[in-house]
Amino acid sequence: MSDDNYEKGLKIRREVLGAEYVDKAIANADDFNRPLQELVTSYCWGSVWGREELSRRDRSLINLAMLTALNRPHEIKLHLHGALNNGLTKDDIREVLLQTAIYCGVPAAIDSFRIAREVFAEREAENK
Amino acid sequence: MSDDNYEKGLKIRREVLGAEYVDKAIANADDFNRPLQELVTSYCWGSVWGREELSRRDRSLINLAMLTALNRPHEIKLHLHGALNNGLTKDDIREVLLQTAIYCGVPAAIDSFRIAREVFAEREAENK
Amino acid sequence: MSDDNYEKGLKIRREVLGAEYVDKAIANADDFNRPLQELVTSYCWGSVWGREELSRRDRSLINLAMLTALNRPHEIKLHLHGALNNGLTKDDIREVLLQTAIYCGVPAAIDSFRIAREVFAEREAENK
Amino acid sequence: MSDDNYEKGLKIRREVLGAEYVDKAIANADDFNRPLQELVTSYCWGSVWGREELSRRDRSLINLAMLTALNRPHEIKLHLHGALNNGLTKDDIREVLLQTAIYCGVPAAIDSFRIAREVFAEREAENK
Amino acid sequence: MSDDNYEKGLKIRREVLGAEYVDKAIANADDFNRPLQELVTSYCWGSVWGREELSRRDRSLINLAMLTALNRPHEIKLHLHGALNNGLTKDDIREVLLQTAIYCGVPAAIDSFRIAREVFAEREAENK
Amino acid sequence: MSDDNYEKGLKIRREVLGAEYVDKAIANADDFNRPLQELVTSYCWGSVWGREELSRRDRSLINLAMLTALNRPHEIKLHLHGALNNGLTKDDIREVLLQTAIYCGVPAAIDSFRIAREVFAEREAENK
Repeated sequence: MSDDNYEKGLKIRREVLGAEYVDKAIANADDFNRPLQELVTSYCWGSVWGREELSRRDRSLINLAMLTALNRPHEIKLHLHGALNNGLTKDDIREVLLQTAIYCGVPAAIDSFRIAREVFAEREAENK
Repeated sequence: MSDDNYEKGLKIRREVLGAEYVDKAIANADDFNRPLQELVTSYCWGSVWGREELSRRDRSLINLAMLTALNRPHEIKLHLHGALNNGLTKDDIREVLLQTAIYCGVPAAIDSFRIAREVFAEREAENK
Repeated sequence: MSDDNYEKGLKIRREVLGAEYVDKAIANADDFNRPLQELVTSYCWGSVWGREELSRRDRSLINLAMLTALNRPHEIKLHLHGALNNGLTKDDIREVLLQTAIYCGVPAAIDSFRIAREVFAEREAENK
Repeated sequence: MSDDNYEKGLKIRREVLGAEYVDKAIANADDFNRPLQELVTSYCWGSVWGREELSRRDRSLINLAMLTALNRPHEIKLHLHGALNNGLTKDDIREVLLQTAIYCGVPAAIDSFRIAREVFAEREAENK
Repeated sequence: MSDDNYEKGLKIRREVLGAEYVDKAIANADDFNRPLQELVTSYCWGSVWGREELSRRDRSLINLAMLTALNRPHEIKLHLHGALNNGLTKDDIREVLLQTAIYCGVPAAIDSFRIAREVFAEREAENK
Repeated sequence: MSDDNYEKGLKIRREVLGAEYVDKAIANADDFNRPLQELVTSYCWGSVWGREELSRRDRSLINLAMLTALNRPHEIKLHLHGALNNGLTKDDIREVLLQTAIYCGVPAAIDSFRIAREVFAEREAENK
């Protein structure tokens, strides 16, 4: 794996998802999941998020929609934090999720709205 | 169904997907699928696309990602036209689809890239 | 959004899912998710469930199957209550879910069977 | 595989999907796909469709919804024929598919409406 | 249902998933879910797992990949135990799950890696 | 992107999918989809298929199952060729696909069986 992509990816991943979360994920990796951590950091965050042709705000926008379609609550939660870190407002998030109701169906949207409210409550409790 | 939402939705739907396509879809509706045409126009295009809190460019961006995740080639094709009509560039589209490779998996991205190239070729042939 | 559809939808939603649950969902809505509550009440419950061409029993029947296919446990739970409120028997529910084993795969059916048993136990505990 | 279930399943499968279609599928089977034909006939049609606790009309109803959610056009087409053979009206089918628009999302419903119109046109051409 | 297939299936199911787990599942079955238990034991475990043309190791390998794609955490957990019982090593499991990152998308792989680590920890705690 | 991974991936991709197919895909790439070709070659084929901890036979086995679950016919076709190139027999393929009937549902298996028969017929016609 290219060291450059890994370093670039690590930097972006920490900026988007939060340094504390990412450092902990990497520190907790063992021989079993370390190759996944490296693959994700290098390819997802280095080779794709690292491309400058689309803004981070746009990348967060499409992630919320995609992850709702894909039905992956853990990642939705993580990328709701990422979206807020990347400057999406609560109103932006509401609009994306309303649109998922139309295309992915109402149950998908309801699930993501519930997770979003949990994330907002957590961040308020932490004064983020 | 609210007449206002239907009229608002019809206007937006024609602007995004093209008046010719939409008028034909509505003219071809029969008793079987007219309720769907009305629901989609009013609900999808009036009540959601009609909300001004998100730009049409942003709505196209997330649709391409969502429809790739949902594996719906007919709608992907339609919304690729919509995306270009809403001002997304070919580079924007490439970036969205590259990101789907990471989150939806490589086969999903490959399918949407192939459809996108077909749409580009069609539009070039028609000098759009 | 048409006020008529909203009022019609609200009445049906309360009858199917239970007045207490629905009133609480609406009372707990904030600026973030109120538009979703309104969209769902008006379109899902007013414009579709409000159509009289299919019985509520039939609508519950297909919802259990669809939601199993869609892998949405929260909604499955909710619509198991709705199905029982709409007159489906435990035997009807078993038959729908057995059929999902064939078409959606065994793991989908197992998940819904487990949720159904939880719902039955809850209702027995409450003497419903 | 139980011979009883296979024979029972074969009878039901021919009644629902049409004897001509089923006989051809079985005649065309080779060593590669014969085990699938046998599994499907015995398991799907004998052990599940063969249960009398749910009417064939109800089983067709839920199949149309489930197959739309599952995004399987070949099977949707087949089971639209089955649904009509089992006594569902075009109005019933429209209602099921309208409901899929809400729960599975609009693109899923649009795809199934299109297939349904093709099936209706084919059957009219054959005076079925 | 054929008694032979049920008996054959029960034997294999107990060997793969563990006798204790399977016996408990069957003992806990009531009139509602007994038909599912029987269908699964006979068809899934008797008619398919009972075929000798593919090794149990291979069947576990493809199950981990399929269940990750299908997004069914309860079954993934169960079949991780099955995979280890069938002789897959932790390294084999890591490789399968890394490959799901490519084809099913990164969020699917992350979910299965997390479940796998939980299963490994449980088994270590029990000295299995 | 690491040049090493790209070169390693290109070699494996050509061996598995056929040199002619891959060379054509790369030659036909334009500015729009070249980044996808590069990402797939390096990431999918270099970083994952390039890992030696799992045999190519095993990787093909799980791909057929996963792609069936994911409902991606173009990729299924491609990887059926890959599976045969990697030494899977028609019997192996039948067994994998029979198992998908249980876990992904019967319609998924039927679709993949149909594609497999088309691939076998094509290869026979070409004396492969």
